[in-house]
Order: sequence, then structure tokens, then C-alpha cells
Amino acid sequence: MIYLDNSATTQPFDEVLDSYTKVAKSYFGNPSSLHGIGGQAEKLLSQARTQIASLLHTKPQEILFTSGGSEGNNLAIKGVALQYQTRGKHIITTSIEHPSVSEACNQLQELGFEITFLPVDKDGSVSLEILENEIRDDTILVSTIHVNNEVGIIQPIEEIGNVLKKYPKVLFHVDHVQGVGKVPLDFEKAKIDLCTISGHKFNGLKGTGVLFVRQGVKLKPLIAGGEQEMLVRAGTENVPGFVALAKALRLTMTDIEKKVKYLSELKQNILEQLTQISDVSINTPLKGSAPHIINFSINGLKPEVFVHLLEEDNIFVSTTSACSSKKNIPSKTLLAMGLTERLANSSIRISLSPMSRMEDVPILIETIQTALTKLRNVMRY
Amino acid sequence: MIYLDNSATTQPFDEVLDSYTKVAKSYFGNPSSLHGIGGQAEKLLSQARTQIASLLHTKPQEILFTSGGSEGNNLAIKGVALQYQTRGKHIITTSIEHPSVSEACNQLQELGFEITFLPVDKDGSVSLEILENEIRDDTILVSTIHVNNEVGIIQPIEEIGNVLKKYPKVLFHVDHVQGVGKVPLDFEKAKIDLCTISGHKFNGLKGTGVLFVRQGVKLKPLIAGGEQEMLVRAGTENVPGFVALAKALRLTMTDIEKKVKYLSELKQNILEQLTQISDVSINTPLKGSAPHIINFSINGLKPEVFVHLLEEDNIFVSTTSACSSKKNIPSKTLLAMGLTERLANSSIRISLSPMSRMEDVPILIETIQTALTKLRNVMRY
Ligand SMILES: Cc1ncc(COP(=O)(O)O)c(C=O)c1O
Ligand SMILES: Cc1ncc(COP(=O)(O)O)c(C=O)c1O
Repeated sequence: MIYLDNSATTQPFDEVLDSYTKVAKSYFGNPSSLHGIGGQAEKLLSQARTQIASLLHTKPQEILFTSGGSEGNNLAIKGVALQYQTRGKHIITTSIEHPSVSEACNQLQELGFEITFLPVDKDGSVSLEILENEIRDDTILVSTIHVNNEVGIIQPIEEIGNVLKKYPKVLFHVDHVQGVGKVPLDFEKAKIDLCTISGHKFNGLKGTGVLFVRQGVKLKPLIAGGEQEMLVRAGTENVPGFVALAKALRLTMTDIEKKVKYLSELKQNILEQLTQISDVSINTPLKGSAPHIINFSINGLKPEVFVHLLEEDNIFVSTTSACSSKKNIPSKTLLAMGLTERLANSSIRISLSPMSRMEDVPILIETIQTALTKLRNVMRY
Repeated sequence: MIYLDNSATTQPFDEVLDSYTKVAKSYFGNPSSLHGIGGQAEKLLSQARTQIASLLHTKPQEILFTSGGSEGNNLAIKGVALQYQTRGKHIITTSIEHPSVSEACNQLQELGFEITFLPVDKDGSVSLEILENEIRDDTILVSTIHVNNEVGIIQPIEEIGNVLKKYPKVLFHVDHVQGVGKVPLDFEKAKIDLCTISGHKFNGLKGTGVLFVRQGVKLKPLIAGGEQEMLVRAGTENVPGFVALAKALRLTMTDIEKKVKYLSELKQNILEQLTQISDVSINTPLKGSAPHIINFSINGLKPEVFVHLLEEDNIFVSTTSACSSKKNIPSKTLLAMGLTERLANSSIRISLSPMSRMEDVPILIETIQTALTKLRNVMRY
């Protein structure tokens, strides 16, 4: 199996699953319970929090556990909006966000908030000038994706943070879900106030995530109730899941420079050979993109057919983001980058992990070529 | 170890953990992915949904997966409120709800909704007459707990459903978290529109839950984004967690009558001996209470001290609900039932599971007696 859909989800590390099972079985207490069974669980939860804080260079009390990236994004955006609405009701985001950001914003629009969706240039980047022009007296939040999940574009997070430094009342949220372990991000340097992470995107477990909330930033809870997670996220904590998330993050961050370098080489290798294939056009910009995502279109091709052809040879790629892949609509990101609907409708995404093998590249390329030949014969395009 | 805090959380069944691990390892795909790795995950998710539906006598498309009871309650209440607010902005609930219901209601109050918190009588029951009196033209939702988590009172859900039958525009939500596997509930007969369940309360895993949403009932998503869970709950699905939840529910429902009978006998046995102990007053009403919860107070006793004394003998009980146990405030439910603050402040909760052993009862009673003698000597109360 050559699994190249790591932006959709990843296979959990064995060590991660082992930690999960051990904790779920032997430390099953409710961290809020007064007695020792609860105390043991509370201690493990707190260790996981401290470890994650240290890996992300934050304070433990800035690490809030969630059920994943979508919850983190919704909590950050709606939590800020409802908390700070007396300051203003204007939010700025981009036109290439994950649906969990754009839909959260759309919901706020129904509640009377005003949302500005920044355009991107042909390389998928937002312009700092346009951003600054859109900031108003009633702007309370800027929310941008770090690494775009469909195309792999990296937004200039530090530069955006620098612009926002001049507007201390505007909070800065970053959707870092696709960036973890691929594109380093310095929360402090980029002046990030809130940052979303999801466990299953870096070989952790589904249903686990972290929202970084800078000390001093307040949020209205999305899930209100008990006093867990600094009163911002109620519910009995998924202790084994969060211990597993800490483990996955530690493993991911080990030798991170080496891994990023390897991913870049792997991507470069694939790109060089892909561009040789006629009718293939690469959508991922060569500069300023993440080392693990390659998005390309094949003129006139139905991408579903192509995905299934590769699958016959045990190669797994994707047409677009997983959560949109069954909708059969053109990629929002590619349209925002100015591609024609035809091209935006025929995109393929390869997404790598540090476990992807260099020796699989020739097999991948050959399979793609064979598939294309087959399709050309059938469809005479 | 004699673990008698099963209303706080339970130890997952070994088979549940095995299912989890197997799915997380071997079927790790994203159910939304177009390819076969995603397809396998989607199939497992759909099987889990069908199995749960069949166990709860609902349709599969009425089963919505969540991250637990708190999310389920918040989604049900806020989801209905925001969806149906043009119909009206009045919600009725009780004064003895879990915080994930009462706090969700408090948040809605800030958004302009009006909440009626029904009183309860000395046995903790709401009155059907008072309920019906409170229903207004702008009432959109009645939300009641089934089995109260602090005291074990069972609300007359079917009778409430019958009252609500006359008001077809009023939706009915039930927090069934403490009832699963302990007090059978017929969703159809009780005319329930929404029902919350949490996996870790019946030997499933933390971070997994189900919200039953009757076909035709619409909800505004709490977590907006991708198109998962009938567009109501975005986020990559925790497939292994939900397969594990289906397994836990199936195991729980197997021989359910026998288990409930056993729990009742166990409770009766403990109750009979507890009442013999001087200064002990039982707060759980003898009639109309769940077979797994015994709440009692010991006049003048600091319950934390008592919990820790039992713990020295490896017996684990609780002062109140886990999520309030560190707050040191009197039990909301006991106050609502008319107990003095002194008694409401000194309550102990024993919560059983079908795995609790009858032969542990004498040990429990003896340990309680010894602990009391010790405390009486120290505190001369
Ligand atoms: C950029 C981005 N943000 C958010 C999410 C949502 O994360 P999750 O699936 O954990 O809810 C994803 C992936 O689905 C993503 O790629
Ligand atoms: C009656 C009741 N409702 C809701 C909840 C919340 O469930 P969870 O801990 O899964 O969020 C609990 C337990 O904590 C409960 O006892």
C-alpha cells in the first residue's frame, strides 16, 4: 500500500495506540473525582498538557484539549466573537479556509457579525496591504489558515502577526492543523493568540485536538457545563486520547528538521517527474508551499476516475480535501487562486508523511502514467 | 479495589478497547475519503450507527455521533434554540440538571432566550401540572434529565412526553446519560425528540457520545464545517471510538433485565444496612430512583474527609457529581429537594455498575462504620 492521503488523516503510531490503551485500561478515572483513581487520571492529563506546552513553547495553562480541529476552530472563532462582541462585530478571514473556519464565520454572520473574506493572489497568498486596509475599529479577530489543506500554500503568518501588532485589540487565530510537523510555527514570534491543532493529522488519534489560547484571552465556551479545561470546554476529559496526543506530538517533533528536509526532497522528486507528464499542471506554487502537499490538475480529467484507477494499484491519493471530496464541486482554494472551473474541478492531491518512502516515487509516477494512458484511450481526450 | 463511582466514569470493557485498537490501527482512513481506505472506515462507521440505532430502536439516520454527554446536551439545546428561535425564545428545564444543560441554558439567556427552571418536590420530581402551566406560545423546547446524576431520581419522562403531545411545536430533549443500561427508556413511547448519551458512563470510551435526533428535527450545528454527521456535527469522525461505543452499548444491553434486577438487589442490600448506621440519612428517594445510585448524608460530616478515609481501604465513592466535586459547594439537587445546606453539603454518592460485587457489600458497610467511628473520635461530633 502506498498511502498518499496524509492530509485527510494519518495512521496512528503504534506507540501512540499503546499509550492510549494503557491509560484507558489502567487509569480510567474521571480527572475531576476527588479520590486517587481520579487523581491518577488528573495527573496523566496534566503531564500531557505540560508536555504539549513544552513542545509548542507555551504555558501549560494555555493548552486546551478539544475533540479535534473542527471543534478547535469553532471554539476559537465563535468563542472570541461572543466574548468580545461589545468591542466590535467585525472578523477578517481568508477565502481559502477549511470549512470549519468559513462555516463558523457564516454562522456568526447570521448572528449579526460582519465577515471579510480576504482574496488571495495566484499563488494563494493573502496580501498584507489588503489585510491592513480591511482592519477597522470594530475588528475583533483575524483568523487565517497556516498551511492550506487543499493546495499546501503557506500563509505569511509571522508577517500577518507583525501587521496585527499595531492593532492590539485585534486577536489573531491560526488554523495550524496542516502545519504541525511540516511547517514550523513560532506562536510567540508570530504573535498568535489562538492556534488550532488536530491529533489525527500527525499520527495521533481521531477525536483529539488542542486549542492554544494565549493567557489573558477569554472565550465563551462552545460546550458549556462542568469546570473542565479552565471553564472553557466542559465534558469528562478524554484522558487516554490526550496522553496519546502528547505522545504523537513528541514523536512528530523528534528530529523535525530532518523530517522536513526529507519531505521537501520527496516532494521535489515527485514534482520533477510529474511536470514531465503531458497535460499535468501543478497547482501547488513551487515557492511558499508546504513540503507534504502536491496539488495538480490533469486537463479535462474527472479526478474521481483517476483516484480509483490509482487505487487499483494500491496507491491512495485524493481529489481534494477529504471533507469535500464527495461533494463534486470545484476546489474553493483553486478558484480563489484564479484557476478556471474546469481545472479547479479536476485536481488531485498527493499528501506525504515522513513515513512515505522515497523508493515508492518511481512506482507512483509509473502508475500515474499508465493510468493516464488508459484514460486517454477510453476518453479520447 | 472496590470502585463505587460509576456515575463519574466507568472502566471500559476489554472487548471495547480491543475493538477500538483494531479499528484505529487497521481501519485508520478518513470516512470522507473517496478511496477504499476511507470506504472501509465509512463502512465501519455506518455499521456502528446501524447497530446503535437498532439497540435504541431508532433509525440509523437519527443517530448523531458526538464527543460525549456535554457536547450532546449543548448541541441539542443550543442547536434547537438557534434553529427554532423565530418560533419563540422560551425554554423549560428543571432545577436539577447536569451543568452541561443548565449552563447551556444560561448561555442562551445571555442571547435573549428566557429559561424556566422547574422546581422539584422533596423526592426530586418535577410536577406535570407545574410543567404544563409553564408552557407558553413561545415555548420551543423542554429539556429534562432522565436519571439525576447526584441523587438518582428518575423523572417521569413518559408522562412528560404525554403532556407535550398536546403541544406539537414544543420539542422534547432528554439527558439520558445516567440512564443507559440502568433505567430503560422508550424514545418512541415517551415522544422524545432529542436524547443525549455518553459512552464512558457504560464502559465505553471517554470522548464518545450519541445524540439521538428524531427525523425531521433540525439543529444549528455547534461545530460547523465539513458535511459529516448529516451536516450537524463537523470534524473527522472518531471511527474507532464510535465502533467502541456500539460495542459497549451492545454489551450493556445484553441481559439488561437481569442486570437491572441485580443492581436493584445490590442497592437494596446496601440501603438496608446503611440505614442501620446512626447519623446516616438517605437522600435518594426509595421509590422512583435508579438502581445504581445511593446518595446519603452523615449529619455534620465533611464528605471529603470521609471519601479519603474509605479510599485508604481501597473503596472509591464520591461526594457529589465528579465535575462539581472540587468546588466545595452544596449539591444543587439536594438543595432543590429542600434539604438544609448543612445536609446538602455533606452528601456521599455510591454509584454501582453491573460489575459491582454483592460480596463487597459487607466490606463496604464495615469500612463505612469504622470510618465513622474514627471520625466521631477525632471530631467529637
Ligand atoms: C486545515 C484544516 N483545518 C481543520 C481541519 C479539521 O480537523 P478535524 O478533522 O480534526 O476536525 C482540517 C482537516 O480536516 C484541516 O485540514
Ligand atoms: C446526567 C449527566 N449528563 C451529562 C453528563 C456529561 O457527560 P460527559 O462527561 O460525557 O460530557 C454527565 C456526566 O458527566 C451526566 O451525569
